[in-house]
Amino acid sequence: MLDFIYNAPTTVYFGKDKHREVGKIISGYGYKKIMLQYGKGSIKKSGLYDEVMASLKECGIEVVEMGGVEPNPKLSFVERAIEVAKTEKVEMILAVGGGSVIDSSKCTALGAKYEGCVWDFNIGKAKPVDALPVGCILTIAAAGSEMSNSAVLTNTELNMKKGCSTEFNRCKFAILNPELTYSVGKFQTACGLVDMMTHTMERYFSVCPDTPLTDAIAESILKSIVEAGKILMENPEDYEARATAMWASSLAHNSLTGCGRENYLAVHQLEHAVSGIFDEVAHGAGLAVIYPVWMEYVKDLAPARFAKFARGVFGVKNSDDKAAAKEGIERIKEFFFDTLKLPSKLSDFSIEGKDIDALVNACTYNGTRTVKSYIPLGEKEVKEIFESCL
Amino acid sequence: MLDFIYNAPTTVYFGKDKHREVGKIISGYGYKKIMLQYGKGSIKKSGLYDEVMASLKECGIEVVEMGGVEPNPKLSFVERAIEVAKTEKVEMILAVGGGSVIDSSKCTALGAKYEGCVWDFNIGKAKPVDALPVGCILTIAAAGSEMSNSAVLTNTELNMKKGCSTEFNRCKFAILNPELTYSVGKFQTACGLVDMMTHTMERYFSVCPDTPLTDAIAESILKSIVEAGKILMENPEDYEARATAMWASSLAHNSLTGCGRENYLAVHQLEHAVSGIFDEVAHGAGLAVIYPVWMEYVKDLAPARFAKFARGVFGVKNSDDKAAAKEGIERIKEFFFDTLKLPSKLSDFSIEGKDIDALVNACTYNGTRTVKSYIPLGEKEVKEIFESCL
Repeated sequence: MLDFIYNAPTTVYFGKDKHREVGKIISGYGYKKIMLQYGKGSIKKSGLYDEVMASLKECGIEVVEMGGVEPNPKLSFVERAIEVAKTEKVEMILAVGGGSVIDSSKCTALGAKYEGCVWDFNIGKAKPVDALPVGCILTIAAAGSEMSNSAVLTNTELNMKKGCSTEFNRCKFAILNPELTYSVGKFQTACGLVDMMTHTMERYFSVCPDTPLTDAIAESILKSIVEAGKILMENPEDYEARATAMWASSLAHNSLTGCGRENYLAVHQLEHAVSGIFDEVAHGAGLAVIYPVWMEYVKDLAPARFAKFARGVFGVKNSDDKAAAKEGIERIKEFFFDTLKLPSKLSDFSIEGKDIDALVNACTYNGTRTVKSYIPLGEKEVKEIFESCL
Repeated sequence: MLDFIYNAPTTVYFGKDKHREVGKIISGYGYKKIMLQYGKGSIKKSGLYDEVMASLKECGIEVVEMGGVEPNPKLSFVERAIEVAKTEKVEMILAVGGGSVIDSSKCTALGAKYEGCVWDFNIGKAKPVDALPVGCILTIAAAGSEMSNSAVLTNTELNMKKGCSTEFNRCKFAILNPELTYSVGKFQTACGLVDMMTHTMERYFSVCPDTPLTDAIAESILKSIVEAGKILMENPEDYEARATAMWASSLAHNSLTGCGRENYLAVHQLEHAVSGIFDEVAHGAGLAVIYPVWMEYVKDLAPARFAKFARGVFGVKNSDDKAAAKEGIERIKEFFFDTLKLPSKLSDFSIEGKDIDALVNACTYNGTRTVKSYIPLGEKEVKEIFESCL
């Protein structure tokens, strides 16, 4: 077990109707003026917006609104939000939405306490030393941003999507009401399940010695997601399955599944190149295509680990490591493509051979970095993986 | 899944030599004057005391010492420590030791911000509204106090051992260096393993519907503890096994294993009566005697749950629930008594039939409460369980 620091300070309020308590929760921290960020209006259609505003109003909390966060949130939006946050002197940011809205809020919170451009944090030009507090009401189980230390931002000018990890990115509180996810469609639900699975699997397949306790917890989370996924594809309003998925999304990415392990997310680096350029590719859908291809690409470098995964998550019985590893990958594909019915190729998104070079450049920062994995993934390897995804 | 609030804000610094960073960690929070609590001097013999003091001195931190915390920490000691903390105006408490030292420090921290007697919190006469921050350097994997919200205190005048649970009891930081536990003897190591197992099992066997994700995580933790225990009985200096046990002790009791479940610790209520009166009974040893007896006592009221436990933790194959449940209990007994070699009866501690009434009175607060379980445990039931423990 490698040395680690574990810090997951987010207070989680989990359960039915919990979002109606948001005003009380925020008042408990003493904040009186907040910025509310949300997406493109689905929370208005669903009635959630009205319920949140009613709770905030009841507690006398002044609200500055910044609706319109896009999927793969954009630097340009965040820069506007930072200006408003500074001018209006808001005391915290409340994100109502999914990973994009939460990431946008986190970046706003960092930028509100910084004089330069917030993108500096994403490219490592500066390190955050302060941030406004962020709270969230989660509406989709997927990104795990509600408890994670990371936020991903897209710089459209540079065609670059990049994460920033800092403990200042931990939400102060997260309100998780599984019922709010009933209305998430099958495709988005499926994408979310893949996202949380890969958050767990990326840490599971990081290159370091076995960690029995962390491995067992990771396998538990993965098994639970697979079981919940099967139920949700049949019955999107199954409370227990929605609750399992929602809590799993948080645990998958709050650092628990990485304790004592290396914590780089290799395939996420590849996928960020895809959805950074092709905005129409949902992050989870991109991961579903690339992850099994990456598994095939590296499996022979760590057959025992891949076999452990297959046995621990899918109960594969084969005692031969290579055969078990292969079976595990087949089971992942079955789950992603047969059960969740996600596209299995980048070409399903009209991404073609001619786009590969741009993807490779985006992923390797024009050949200036390799992605950590069982072998370092440089331009050649990244290109081979992307080509196998077509 | 029941509604829940999850709050585990303790920052964990895990790994080799991490205790040497304690001065830097405390300085990071800005504290300049602290109280140091420890037990009866084993940290002086081991050299840990000197290393901690060197780190604190290097960072210019002023230290007020309160050594001499006893196992099952006593109200009288805590009252003295509170006086000193108030007089000396210390800014935080650093506990160097196991559960007793941490609990003593937590109670001191609560009392330092309260005008009345700190025992008020244990008997529900008052609720904490503030506390000094507490940090710890853990020297035994057992109680889980390093991340839990509870602290147990013994009032020798009343012959009463009672916990107080409050979010003010969460440590600000916990330094977990598995190497510090190499010197813990086999008996105490075994007691610790039982303590952390029962923290997990008590939540697992609380009366509420199945919670697939929490159940799977609990089973993972239990399996990992059993595997680590087998290794540690053979090789007390196996780093990986010590690390697994140490991290498991924290996860078992930081609320994770109770998410979505009822959170009362039934058998702990019975054991507190035992070690509250018979100071020579180690908490974990008391639990090892009582837990299997309690399991036998209630197993027929929830055969499916007990079977799930047997299958999930010990891989029991029997498809008949009652038979599987029975086998699971046998496996627990084998682990406690054959592998860990712990005493299996209260009579091994010279507790006799004539002592039962006192134990029943202590557990039921002289007949004024029942203990929650698959059936409420009143005087009659508690008496039957204790009698079966002889």
